[in-house]
Amino acid sequence: MVDETQVPHFWAVVPAGGAGTRLWPVSRAGSPKFLHDLTGTGRSLLQQTADRLSPLVADRLVVVTGQRHRDAVAAQLPQVAPDQLIAEPSARDSMAAIGLAAALLERRDPDAVMGSFAADHVIADGRAFGECVRRAVTAARDGWLVTIGITPTHPATGFGYIARGGPLADHDQVWHVDEFVEKPSQSVAERYVAAGTHVWNAGMFVCRPGVLLDLLADSDPDFAAALRAVAAAPDTLAEVWETLPRIALDHAVAEPAASAGRVVVVPAGFDWEDVGDFDALRGLLDAEPAGLTVLGEAETVLGVESSGLVIPGGDRVVAVIGLDDVVVVDTPDALLVTTRAHAQQVKGIVARLKDAGRSDLT
Amino acid sequence: MVDETQVPHFWAVVPAGGAGTRLWPVSRAGSPKFLHDLTGTGRSLLQQTADRLSPLVADRLVVVTGQRHRDAVAAQLPQVAPDQLIAEPSARDSMAAIGLAAALLERRDPDAVMGSFAADHVIADGRAFGECVRRAVTAARDGWLVTIGITPTHPATGFGYIARGGPLADHDQVWHVDEFVEKPSQSVAERYVAAGTHVWNAGMFVCRPGVLLDLLADSDPDFAAALRAVAAAPDTLAEVWETLPRIALDHAVAEPAASAGRVVVVPAGFDWEDVGDFDALRGLLDAEPAGLTVLGEAETVLGVESSGLVIPGGDRVVAVIGLDDVVVVDTPDALLVTTRAHAQQVKGIVARLKDAGRSDLT
Repeated sequence: MVDETQVPHFWAVVPAGGAGTRLWPVSRAGSPKFLHDLTGTGRSLLQQTADRLSPLVADRLVVVTGQRHRDAVAAQLPQVAPDQLIAEPSARDSMAAIGLAAALLERRDPDAVMGSFAADHVIADGRAFGECVRRAVTAARDGWLVTIGITPTHPATGFGYIARGGPLADHDQVWHVDEFVEKPSQSVAERYVAAGTHVWNAGMFVCRPGVLLDLLADSDPDFAAALRAVAAAPDTLAEVWETLPRIALDHAVAEPAASAGRVVVVPAGFDWEDVGDFDALRGLLDAEPAGLTVLGEAETVLGVESSGLVIPGGDRVVAVIGLDDVVVVDTPDALLVTTRAHAQQVKGIVARLKDAGRSDLT
Repeated sequence: MVDETQVPHFWAVVPAGGAGTRLWPVSRAGSPKFLHDLTGTGRSLLQQTADRLSPLVADRLVVVTGQRHRDAVAAQLPQVAPDQLIAEPSARDSMAAIGLAAALLERRDPDAVMGSFAADHVIADGRAFGECVRRAVTAARDGWLVTIGITPTHPATGFGYIARGGPLADHDQVWHVDEFVEKPSQSVAERYVAAGTHVWNAGMFVCRPGVLLDLLADSDPDFAAALRAVAAAPDTLAEVWETLPRIALDHAVAEPAASAGRVVVVPAGFDWEDVGDFDALRGLLDAEPAGLTVLGEAETVLGVESSGLVIPGGDRVVAVIGLDDVVVVDTPDALLVTTRAHAQQVKGIVARLKDAGRSDLT
């Protein structure tokens, strides 16, 4: 029997940031990836994230986003109460964003366990996801910093890895974490996958808010104190925010905590995709490699002897002839034509446009 | 010394028809190839044709075009008198179009020599062109049907060829024509080019109007009589036009006349391009094979590790990454993405759009 009841005192924290520049021109600073329906389901990645979490948390969902996206997030997630939609005065990386949520939850619910989940990842199997999270929450209640690691499907070099140690006593399928490893070389990644000792770090952390802040205090006591002070006096947010370090949670907390033996991992078998670029998006949309996959109005696309991904921009007809693994992305003010193999280079175009003073397009 | 004076009684006839479907979406039935500036010079192909002819004919330029393009042609060529701009009630192929002009000129100028030149070909060397035409006119005054044949630069299979016979007595660099050959196979084309016995048929014919009509009368007396009757009573054009055969001048006159020993050829050494597709257009625009050639606003195109042709549609930014010999053509209502090697298949898209009832796009 699968447990389908909500998890008492479990809070989801969703940091919704990141422009997703490798998905330009669909994703832009002013209209980032998480606000877009990139899977053709009619729900944005952010909405799908909320949908996936809601059976576990009911209304205990906190979203941390940039000031400029606050209204768009509120419109997409009307179920989130205003005091659970936190607008960052500026982008200061994940430690500040998730740490602020932790400090607020620490005051609000002494029994809280929180889990942080990116707003722009795709996980098709919500039930398997839920089972992993429940297992993680159980370990988190015992004071562990718990991460959910993705079982690798291939020796990816674009993700960090988590080295699994021995099993955690008194828990089912929870393991000690020996270390977090940054994006490895191809040969190292192949070794990890062959050995079965490593899982992908998808940035999913589950813990008690006080545990997270105490671990932060071990490495940067001022940072932790500042977050707790803001939570006690929310009016000071704008003033304090600009003084906080720009650092990822992985570096500020997860890596040192792993060295200190304070982190455990729940390996997850579900399919997971961070939709990092158009190549990944094409892979996600269609397991069938032949032909053109259309994200949008399929009738507007005419393909001849072609394969790849087309995102039409509306009513304009898009004709593609004789190109394999092509990527065509049409928007009202910008058009991208590339290949799946060159998908990572899209961010270079965004950089060039910024350099040219065309931030209206980025 | 090059002769730069105009040629008395020499009339140019420019049939301006043909949608140029392989240049879709730039060229369309409602906005055909000859009306576009495809060379980035600021002059349309039609205007360049008129510019090339004007030193030879002064104001003796006759344009035959479709009813729907009459106003556009008049706007592009304000120097053409209204009675020299003939609007065909419907498209009936080149014999009817050029034959009607011949019948009108036969009545208007008993000493006329006419030359027919397509509206959508590109010839860079106007001086060399003029020399060839003068030579052709001299032979035409003696009653010959004269064609100007292009010296092949490669064994093309997309053009018809003209087999050269012996030299024409009393004329410099004019040769008898043995036969017209339809588009040959690759091996036959290679043989022609190696032997130096054949030139390309570019549809350029120079002759006295009466000679053309008499040659037509040899194969189809009713057709020739109908054209002469319309010229005598222009009010009957609309009524008679729909009864005329749909046939190319090559088949109706040139081929049988060659069999009868009535055709001569002036070989031309100038570069000539019929801009049949985007591959030819790219070759025409830039002899340099590397990089992206932009026809339009170059600042709107960002290329990375790419080569080929981009025709931007206006202010929209076009980014191309990692594609060689690509063709990207952006217009307000249709976008084409293909390769130079697939340029011939563009007409298939036009056919599909017509089948789908989208004649608004063709």
